[in-house]
Amino acid sequence: MASQTLLLLPGDGIGTEIMVEVEKLIDWTNAEGLTDFSTDHGLVGGAAYDAHQVAVSEDDVEKARAADAVIFGAVGGPKWDNVPYEHRPEAALLRLRKELGVFANLRPAICYPALAEASSLKRELVEGLDILIVRELTGGVYFGEPKEITDLGDGQKRAIDTQVYETYEIDRIARVAFDLARTRSNKVHSADKKNVMKSGVLWDEVVRGVAKDYPDVAFEHILADNAAMQLVRNPKQFDVMVTDNLFGDILSDAAAMLTGSLGMLPSASLGAPDPATGKRKAFYEPVHGSAPDIAGKGIANPIAMIASFAMALRYSFNMIELADRVDAAIADVLADGLRTGDIAQDNRKTVGTEEMGAAILAKL
Amino acid sequence: MASQTLLLLPGDGIGTEIMVEVEKLIDWTNAEGLTDFSTDHGLVGGAAYDAHQVAVSEDDVEKARAADAVIFGAVGGPKWDNVPYEHRPEAALLRLRKELGVFANLRPAICYPALAEASSLKRELVEGLDILIVRELTGGVYFGEPKEITDLGDGQKRAIDTQVYETYEIDRIARVAFDLARTRSNKVHSADKKNVMKSGVLWDEVVRGVAKDYPDVAFEHILADNAAMQLVRNPKQFDVMVTDNLFGDILSDAAAMLTGSLGMLPSASLGAPDPATGKRKAFYEPVHGSAPDIAGKGIANPIAMIASFAMALRYSFNMIELADRVDAAIADVLADGLRTGDIAQDNRKTVGTEEMGAAILAKL
Ligand SMILES: CC(C)[C@H](C(=O)O)[C@@H](O)C(=O)O
Ligand SMILES: CC(C)[C@H](C(=O)O)[C@@H](O)C(=O)O
Repeated sequence: MASQTLLLLPGDGIGTEIMVEVEKLIDWTNAEGLTDFSTDHGLVGGAAYDAHQVAVSEDDVEKARAADAVIFGAVGGPKWDNVPYEHRPEAALLRLRKELGVFANLRPAICYPALAEASSLKRELVEGLDILIVRELTGGVYFGEPKEITDLGDGQKRAIDTQVYETYEIDRIARVAFDLARTRSNKVHSADKKNVMKSGVLWDEVVRGVAKDYPDVAFEHILADNAAMQLVRNPKQFDVMVTDNLFGDILSDAAAMLTGSLGMLPSASLGAPDPATGKRKAFYEPVHGSAPDIAGKGIANPIAMIASFAMALRYSFNMIELADRVDAAIADVLADGLRTGDIAQDNRKTVGTEEMGAAILAKL
Repeated sequence: MASQTLLLLPGDGIGTEIMVEVEKLIDWTNAEGLTDFSTDHGLVGGAAYDAHQVAVSEDDVEKARAADAVIFGAVGGPKWDNVPYEHRPEAALLRLRKELGVFANLRPAICYPALAEASSLKRELVEGLDILIVRELTGGVYFGEPKEITDLGDGQKRAIDTQVYETYEIDRIARVAFDLARTRSNKVHSADKKNVMKSGVLWDEVVRGVAKDYPDVAFEHILADNAAMQLVRNPKQFDVMVTDNLFGDILSDAAAMLTGSLGMLPSASLGAPDPATGKRKAFYEPVHGSAPDIAGKGIANPIAMIASFAMALRYSFNMIELADRVDAAIADVLADGLRTGDIAQDNRKTVGTEEMGAAILAKL
């Protein structure tokens, strides 16, 4: 097997602690001969700002571009609340997404059976929940120009953001959603605000066109506000939901929280396959953030981070069996009653980051 | 008392059925000498399109401008799914909001105790819930220009929407939120995406400035995606949430659904006080839509519509006592066990629109 390169970007807060557990896992898969990964490290977010006064250095962007997959922890914290806007920790994430062209953000919202009780929703509404939100990640209001604040004098300012979508951007993300639906329950909802946004009108027009190429997949349009309602009312009606960058941000967070398993949820962001090699740029990160309040205490939940690595095995390296094994190991330790503080339950054993990582490794 | 004018715009679907119950209520308050309302009627949405090929006629816009308050039902239905975009039913709503300048949309999300069980959330998380979402309603991406689709040739199009906010727009909506918080639990959250949007940066800057004028009100910033999460996780942490037009659309719908009382929730949209008379333009409507699936069956829940009328009494006519009586009558019939189909429960009596309206009237 040719050696494959992973760039690890732990970031800030609990990002660094949970990445350590992934590194142990990589050491083990390499030692077992299951993988042949060479890893490199970089700085992002506040850590990069402290070192280089930018949210991510050109060097690290270059490394990310060269890597077979990027494994990202989390960025941000109160320490960097007042750095210049263009260097704020989140800028690293936006820059990397754009530079890598990872337009397809897959955000599974699954409810781990052992954790159904942790959801704020009634158990029967979330038990067995398995939604995949497919969020467009490199377009829309996140990147459209103009994006600026103008001083109008007299204490007045005007701020502008621009939502832009072109046909090809919508077409390619829709195809990702429909392709994935075929591997799942064959149902796609597309969420937009076509009743008020022209980008929603185009979004819907293009997605409907793509839907025609997938006559075997059930397709439904839903307004984004109604999608938020329906996620709360009855999330199990959904299988795959495809939506734009901004709606995807909000709806995927709501969906993740519904599951009661927020600290457990990974995500993958994929680029277009390279025409020559068929390889996709790819970026993996937990859905949760850098949790400054619990950083440095060794109590963070490493599961979302480890599950993100499992997604890398699955989507970047086609190591389906190994990915399944990692996912099964996670489910097993939960079934054994091990919990980190964020998912602590009566009659279950609360452990720290290291112990949780070790337990998952032991299952493998 | 000088005669005050109400413009009733029932619209489509169940809009017409539930408005009838408000009319009966108005007849009664007039007959009792509690009010001296003169009412007029207009067409909006599909009904207006069928009559005049527009979503709302100039005549009716003029009437709305002249009225002391506008009472709006709901618009839309499959019949008008394919009318030209500028005449789609929703256009009536957008046009009227803009023409009347009703920038402050108050969306209470309260959980009627009798209905706590109907929520998809665990009872203890929603029982007693009382959030007020204050949504900016006449700016942002709903109205910013350019807003257009351009044909690029080769089957490619580009769609653009523009989010624009100016200082004064943010300032005035923030003041509405802080003023209202003082009549409630003295807490304001402001939700935006300042980590990716320049309009969010300005939004936050201006709201923080306003917060300084209200040192007695607790203030917190929250990112809109986190707000969606926190609404699901623990809605009772919120009192007043102020946010922009688009986030307000989504977050208020999610909040409304959380309560289990969606068919019961009213809304008010208020303009700036006229410098000469102190009067505000005002627009009242239920949070729910036109529900084409149950239209014409006499089974729609009129409570949100009646509660919207109660908001008119409260906010446009300062008839606090009468508004309180109407709200109490609603709570009473629910406590008596009366339910429409949407909130049907075992061991409760399911009634139709008319019977529910009559029961509320009887309580008065
Ligand atoms: C940190 C922020 C820029 C980011 C986003 O808005 O995309 C985050 O919320 C996410 O969902 O990954
Ligand atoms: C019908 C639609 C234009 C409207 C909106 O998006 O504002 C509705 O969803 C609402 O919240 O009143």
